[in-house]
Amino acid sequence: MRKFLLIALLWVSGLLAAKAQSITSPDNNLILTFSLKDGGVPTYQLTYKKKEVIKTSKLGIETKDVLSFMDGFTITNTAKATFDENWTPVWGEQKTIRNHYNELLVTLTQKAVKDRFIRIRFRLFNDGLGFRYEFPSQPNLNYFVIKEEHTQFALAGDHKAFWLPGDFDTQEYSTVTSNLSEVRGKMKAAVTANVNQTTFSPTGVQTPLMMKSKDGLYINIHEAALVDYSCMSLNLDDKNMVLESFLTPDAIGDKGYMQAPTQSPWRTVIVSDKAGDILLSKLVYNLNEPTKFKDVSWIKPVKYVGVWWEMITGKSTWAYNNLESVQLGVTDYSKTQPNGKHGATTANVKKYIDFAAKNGFDAVLVEGWNEGWEDWFGKTKDYVFDFVTPYPDFDVKELHRYAASKNVKIIMHHETSGSVRNYERHLDTAYKFMVANGYNAVKSGYVGQIIPRGEHHYGQWLVNHYLYAITKAADYKIMVNAHEAIRPTGLARTYPNLIGNEAARGTEYESFGGNNPDHTTILPFTRLVGGPMDYTPGIFQTKISAYNPENKSFVHTTLTKQLALYVTMYSPLQMAADLPETYEKFADAFQFIKDVAVDWDDSYIIEAEPGDYLTIARKAKGKNEWYVGSITDENARTATVKFDYLPKGKTYEAIIYADGKDADYEKNPQSYIIRKMKVNSKTVLKQAVAPGGGFAISIK
Amino acid sequence: MRKFLLIALLWVSGLLAAKAQSITSPDNNLILTFSLKDGGVPTYQLTYKKKEVIKTSKLGIETKDVLSFMDGFTITNTAKATFDENWTPVWGEQKTIRNHYNELLVTLTQKAVKDRFIRIRFRLFNDGLGFRYEFPSQPNLNYFVIKEEHTQFALAGDHKAFWLPGDFDTQEYSTVTSNLSEVRGKMKAAVTANVNQTTFSPTGVQTPLMMKSKDGLYINIHEAALVDYSCMSLNLDDKNMVLESFLTPDAIGDKGYMQAPTQSPWRTVIVSDKAGDILLSKLVYNLNEPTKFKDVSWIKPVKYVGVWWEMITGKSTWAYNNLESVQLGVTDYSKTQPNGKHGATTANVKKYIDFAAKNGFDAVLVEGWNEGWEDWFGKTKDYVFDFVTPYPDFDVKELHRYAASKNVKIIMHHETSGSVRNYERHLDTAYKFMVANGYNAVKSGYVGQIIPRGEHHYGQWLVNHYLYAITKAADYKIMVNAHEAIRPTGLARTYPNLIGNEAARGTEYESFGGNNPDHTTILPFTRLVGGPMDYTPGIFQTKISAYNPENKSFVHTTLTKQLALYVTMYSPLQMAADLPETYEKFADAFQFIKDVAVDWDDSYIIEAEPGDYLTIARKAKGKNEWYVGSITDENARTATVKFDYLPKGKTYEAIIYADGKDADYEKNPQSYIIRKMKVNSKTVLKQAVAPGGGFAISIK
Repeated sequence: MRKFLLIALLWVSGLLAAKAQSITSPDNNLILTFSLKDGGVPTYQLTYKKKEVIKTSKLGIETKDVLSFMDGFTITNTAKATFDENWTPVWGEQKTIRNHYNELLVTLTQKAVKDRFIRIRFRLFNDGLGFRYEFPSQPNLNYFVIKEEHTQFALAGDHKAFWLPGDFDTQEYSTVTSNLSEVRGKMKAAVTANVNQTTFSPTGVQTPLMMKSKDGLYINIHEAALVDYSCMSLNLDDKNMVLESFLTPDAIGDKGYMQAPTQSPWRTVIVSDKAGDILLSKLVYNLNEPTKFKDVSWIKPVKYVGVWWEMITGKSTWAYNNLESVQLGVTDYSKTQPNGKHGATTANVKKYIDFAAKNGFDAVLVEGWNEGWEDWFGKTKDYVFDFVTPYPDFDVKELHRYAASKNVKIIMHHETSGSVRNYERHLDTAYKFMVANGYNAVKSGYVGQIIPRGEHHYGQWLVNHYLYAITKAADYKIMVNAHEAIRPTGLARTYPNLIGNEAARGTEYESFGGNNPDHTTILPFTRLVGGPMDYTPGIFQTKISAYNPENKSFVHTTLTKQLALYVTMYSPLQMAADLPETYEKFADAFQFIKDVAVDWDDSYIIEAEPGDYLTIARKAKGKNEWYVGSITDENARTATVKFDYLPKGKTYEAIIYADGKDADYEKNPQSYIIRKMKVNSKTVLKQAVAPGGGFAISIK
Repeated sequence: MRKFLLIALLWVSGLLAAKAQSITSPDNNLILTFSLKDGGVPTYQLTYKKKEVIKTSKLGIETKDVLSFMDGFTITNTAKATFDENWTPVWGEQKTIRNHYNELLVTLTQKAVKDRFIRIRFRLFNDGLGFRYEFPSQPNLNYFVIKEEHTQFALAGDHKAFWLPGDFDTQEYSTVTSNLSEVRGKMKAAVTANVNQTTFSPTGVQTPLMMKSKDGLYINIHEAALVDYSCMSLNLDDKNMVLESFLTPDAIGDKGYMQAPTQSPWRTVIVSDKAGDILLSKLVYNLNEPTKFKDVSWIKPVKYVGVWWEMITGKSTWAYNNLESVQLGVTDYSKTQPNGKHGATTANVKKYIDFAAKNGFDAVLVEGWNEGWEDWFGKTKDYVFDFVTPYPDFDVKELHRYAASKNVKIIMHHETSGSVRNYERHLDTAYKFMVANGYNAVKSGYVGQIIPRGEHHYGQWLVNHYLYAITKAADYKIMVNAHEAIRPTGLARTYPNLIGNEAARGTEYESFGGNNPDHTTILPFTRLVGGPMDYTPGIFQTKISAYNPENKSFVHTTLTKQLALYVTMYSPLQMAADLPETYEKFADAFQFIKDVAVDWDDSYIIEAEPGDYLTIARKAKGKNEWYVGSITDENARTATVKFDYLPKGKTYEAIIYADGKDADYEKNPQSYIIRKMKVNSKTVLKQAVAPGGGFAISIK
């Protein structure tokens, strides 16, 4: 009898040890199952409305110096929890965000190292899953070096995917839309030239990765709370349709230096059968820590213009003179011959300040104000900028006075040229200079090869640096808009002074050959998951040759699509990027940009299909105003706009800025019609949209 | 006739183009000849008193991205000059230094790149040669990346050499004495274990490299003014006895990032038929720029004791508790269990302050005062120290007050653990903390693997960092003593607040197994060329087991040899490294350390043979006091001490601290005799020296 009982107990405990653990989302649509497979390999699986989203997929981390966290595990504890809380972001698409999940925490122990354990924490929301590895404080685990993370996402089919080539240094690629099985064949053409790029696999892709299954499931994979860890890309096994995490190496090939207690970032899978749910998902933010900032009164959304597009188009220059190379502190700029095309002059900046003041803009960005632009690019120059020494024709104090007198801010510009040690050496001085001269926001840039050489834009070293710059900026009450930096992973919840990033092909590429007409119908499903983008739209003069006859590029949208972007490309930082003189020619269309809000009480996805079209409505924060934006790809269409988010029983005046009948992004981009109509919550509007076109509506 | 003239002119100009250019030293003993060899390859050659020192040797720099500077040159200009000036160092072995040289400046042009030229500048002193490459400002030369420098030193024979294995990260090897032809066979045994090391060749050696030819020429090769360039090691072609420069690579294998106008460091060859001339040579300093510091009153030589040897021997610990790992700002030290062996406690430091005050010492070094020592070593930990947060048992303010009340300084300690970005991030805060708390000198350290990973201690990146820390320290009027940093190259002329480096095996290695008995008979010929060493002598208790029974090491010198080191190992920073309680037991011998000066009007080499013995006398700065130190290797000897540097016609009292009759560094190290005698300028003293022994004399 004893022997039988023993066997039974062993069997039961064995069962328990291997027993699958499950949780569901609050609405029960999603089921997450964790279990150990043969050899004690941790796996998970995710279904949505009974369809497999992620098939049984392995988890694990391979290390260089201690026993890897890959197998030989047993489950020594499980814990479940529920959390439901509303929180208020400092800025955003919604006034209030609900953070509601069911959690499963598994503790896994490996016999091979006495008393060594890890935890994997799963949080299941109505809109998707987040999970991360945790390495708690314990006697037998301290330092370890990651060789590779092996988190798999086994997909249920050869999904349609919207992907960027996997790269350790840039995201400035056009999104490729294809089935996963086609990634390999399309990779070569997808890897267009960039000043600094490092692909890693013929089937490597970046996150956020957007996919759509044949049976209509929208699936987005990304990460949340990327702190002190290497950025995750994905490597596709295109035989089996399994994506696997691929971390960014450092200069010597290692992928992460860890000290317990610590954790990985969250790996996120957002899923829905409605495309709009992907756009509305706050899962990535919800997985980030609440902010500890006590005073956030200095963090405010910004609508701005800038001395920038005139340089991007080639009409003027960042550089002051034509020297081939300069040495800061040695080159006496006042003795050099100015090139006569410098953009950031006191007089020119004043014009922008006047324009901003006249039109209700908060700020003027000025690039090319400081010594060093003559040879900043492509030279891997260490001491490239000092961030405080202006050119002879840029009067810091006078412009501070002038801007302040008009209640306009100037946005500082810190192009680092990838020379990160140099930036950190100057950072306090540079921030102090900003405070002393009335600047409260900075656009930073990391164009080119990273110095220290061998490091990558997306490695742990730079992930650490970007956050260092942001947290130090907060000490000075400075807002940060970091270009060419890591794509956001919801950190703005914890650090709300991070008001923007680039980390994708922005409007500047319209001047570098053009973006695809469907570009901005994709970005909200990819790049904008995790944080806003400083896309800098608002180009009315779409033929760049009007500014610079040598530049044959043209913006691949109509004029009114540019207006729509202020609604469809959510950002607390919005630029009217074109030149003031152009806006003055189209004052009636420009009115929309003047009116549109940059901060919102709520957002509504009216129509959405990644790669095809978007129609979004938003309610301005604290106002009875709504704004609608609708865009299409290269195909004309008719949008169906509902207004059921308007308070019932009231009538509002809508101003509609739409493509003209014969508008076309290439042939007739500037054809538009502005009309007014009365709308109420029952109105349904059918609106024609031109190829590469869009429309914008303001409702008051 | 015309044709003939033309041919003649061409012939002459051709001759001129290839014609050797020569200069001599002011005393005509040295001749430097520059010429172009076939293919326009620049070469030089050096003779001393008609003996070849450097046979015809090639010069050149190979680049990665522009045409290399290797061949195809013609001489387009030569210029000669003479310079003769005395200058006064802030501290040193002499009050005044004469800088007297003849200079040859050749301008070399390569046809392959239009109008591109370089210069090579040769300076010939009575004690040797210095030369460097210069890249003047010009249209067709801006940025270039060095792949390797190919400066050769073709030697005239299989010289005896005193060498360290070539390494990009450490110099903490015992010097090997062998013929150059034996380097290859002895390399393996020479590369003893070090926490961070990177050898590069089976015949690679470091500089300063000391050699002695079979016909009695002493030759030393080093570099001067290493600024913003990669450190030079030497790779030996042991078939042909040619040494060639071997620069230190960065993380991606490149060896230097240059922007014209710029120059290489000076390559130096000190030569004499008198060993003492090597020790007296100021050539390396003379090649450095004069200081621009206006106020140097805050820079003063320092005699100090320290809470250090008790940790090196294992008697106490740097760490406060026994945790395996800590996280700064997270670990609450006040809640942890102290290990009871912490060295840097308020009470213990006060004992050292009392001892320093009682015995006329300027300062007390304290290591292990700050949070982070529990896991600082060998973990490649990024945020390892913050340089401002003391342990719970170290009261910063109280010790500041106490030290100041006794007119004693505390020397700050900044161990960086090789985590250089972390150090730079904290540098201003750390220096401000020093100023606020009465510290005016810091010992910094770079133990372990450099972070950013892939960089080396001796690469351009770190060379730049060390100088950054020194120049920033000067802004705060702080003196720097940098350990594990680059060996000095005379920069203390320009930056006199650099009062010390380690960059060799110091006294601590006596506790890590022992230094060779001839170690300090070599170091002045090698390590001390270019700058002083913080050797930290003065160990009276030579058996380490007396402090820590588990440590069987012993100091490989007699007690009085330790006294002699205060004279033979010149340094403006001198530590009495042993424990106060030990000095109190040997108060009579300790008197010499109390008396000996640390700054000098003049120095005299009485006897010198590298690797065998040294007898040096020095006159204290501004005083009628002289000090003599004499040391030997493992062989006993009789030193012959002259006193002809004493003013004539006066008699002085000399106190002689010498080995006892039966003294021996291993068997009887603490046997010594102190006696007095009268001396004058005509006295010649014969003094016996024990194996591994030495003696010291104070003359007043």
